[in-house]
Amino acid sequence: MPELLSDAFEQVQRDVDAAFDAFLPVPQDTRARLVEAMRYAVIGGGKRVRPLLVCATAKLFGVDRDAAVAAGCAVEAIHAYSLIHDDLPCMDDDDLRHGKPTLHKVYDEATAVLAGDCLHALAFDILTMPGTSSDPFVRAELVATLARASGHEGMAGGQMMDIVSDEEEYDLRQVTRLQQLKTGALLAASVEMGAVLGKVPPEGRTHLRAYARDIGLAFQIADDLLDVEGDEAKAGKALRKDEGQGKQTFVTLMGRDKARAQAKMLVDQAGEHLASYGNDAQVLVELAHFVVKRDH
Amino acid sequence: MPELLSDAFEQVQRDVDAAFDAFLPVPQDTRARLVEAMRYAVIGGGKRVRPLLVCATAKLFGVDRDAAVAAGCAVEAIHAYSLIHDDLPCMDDDDLRHGKPTLHKVYDEATAVLAGDCLHALAFDILTMPGTSSDPFVRAELVATLARASGHEGMAGGQMMDIVSDEEEYDLRQVTRLQQLKTGALLAASVEMGAVLGKVPPEGRTHLRAYARDIGLAFQIADDLLDVEGDEAKAGKALRKDEGQGKQTFVTLMGRDKARAQAKMLVDQAGEHLASYGNDAQVLVELAHFVVKRDH
Repeated sequence: MPELLSDAFEQVQRDVDAAFDAFLPVPQDTRARLVEAMRYAVIGGGKRVRPLLVCATAKLFGVDRDAAVAAGCAVEAIHAYSLIHDDLPCMDDDDLRHGKPTLHKVYDEATAVLAGDCLHALAFDILTMPGTSSDPFVRAELVATLARASGHEGMAGGQMMDIVSDEEEYDLRQVTRLQQLKTGALLAASVEMGAVLGKVPPEGRTHLRAYARDIGLAFQIADDLLDVEGDEAKAGKALRKDEGQGKQTFVTLMGRDKARAQAKMLVDQAGEHLASYGNDAQVLVELAHFVVKRDH
Repeated sequence: MPELLSDAFEQVQRDVDAAFDAFLPVPQDTRARLVEAMRYAVIGGGKRVRPLLVCATAKLFGVDRDAAVAAGCAVEAIHAYSLIHDDLPCMDDDDLRHGKPTLHKVYDEATAVLAGDCLHALAFDILTMPGTSSDPFVRAELVATLARASGHEGMAGGQMMDIVSDEEEYDLRQVTRLQQLKTGALLAASVEMGAVLGKVPPEGRTHLRAYARDIGLAFQIADDLLDVEGDEAKAGKALRKDEGQGKQTFVTLMGRDKARAQAKMLVDQAGEHLASYGNDAQVLVELAHFVVKRDH
């Protein structure tokens, strides 16, 4: 990983951990278990791709770092809640996440359901704190962007399409749509929220949206390749799951070589969309390349 | 039930059903199952106590009816998601809700988890729609109020205290705290949101907050009495659960007679807090009395 990008990742990982630590003091009553579970899920794990997208985009427009980190934490809280619920026995039934036991394994299923729900609420709580933005227009638009991207018209809708994919024979168009919702919507929201914080009007977000769309698809193609070719120890989660479930993925539909070429094309294209930002967008451009090269 | 109150309930039930119908068109793809499950949970069921609290409070300040109904739908979406997740096998494992099979019985557990999550997101989506308020200050404050009331510092925090109550021997102070969070926080948020829509500054909300606190406790005492004395057919859900689980409730800690007297005192007191609003607050006063007399 280029030094510029690895420095940016390290900084955002440190800042996000510190922010969650401050957002989540453990109460001195029987809710302690719940808040400890929430902390387990959001502190000290995950690559923080989404917060980095928020921060790197916000930086293009000179946004205050603390505000960008707070908004990044909100997206990450949504991402974390979705992983907790996904890992439940009634969903994907996973035991390992980010190389650690999943939350319902460490605590129990009821605590996992609740901790997920609380992280979901925390995301919107964070976005409406005056520290995130002193401008209520911005706060309201951040909430609207994240709520739309995470609900049935976004991430969770894609989840549902994924769940029923065992029964349906999706073609490439449908798999693309599924992934645009399941993974792409939240990645796109991260970039969008950076622009919202920077008070960029919608008509000024065209290049950023194109970038986000391309890396969203590239991210998922890379994930499908990782599922087939990856190393479980490095990935920190169970792999070879798609094949076992007979799911259609970019890899089953395109083959590995074409999938890899498509991901590379998307990443190059993503970088080109940011040409007008010049060197300022270097972290975002490098992040696009990282997305397809990552081994976890 | 007095005619004024029953008319108000009927109107809000009709308006909330119509609003959810408009918020949730069924998509023409494999997300249809998810949206149908969401509709099952929020259309044509429930008393709509929370939306009525929003609407009746908002009406005190001349708020547009559609705006109040939208905010009421947001609170109801949070309430509905919490019931769906509560009813899951890993939580309370209930088969019946509002006299209908619970969502995971009609669909499946994975769909129930996701439909709950999507209603959670929908709540915040609704609050940031310009139709709910043209004032971004109001939109942001509505979100802040609802997010805080429903997360680990509110409803879900109370849920957690309830779950661990099997292992803990709570005293009256602790049960009161638990119920203030689990049930009271969302009822209080409903009243608060009516005031937010009415642009009442925080210092002008003292009486309304006192009213909400009193009916919140009265509501839960009545629920505990209903669990002991109620008719399952009328309640539309399983009863006699507290006793079976050996839980401390207002009834086990105070006895039925004292609990009933306490609820009545709270309801009278709740009405007195609204004295300065005169006849305009009649629906809210009658709603307080209904809360302890209801049989479901």
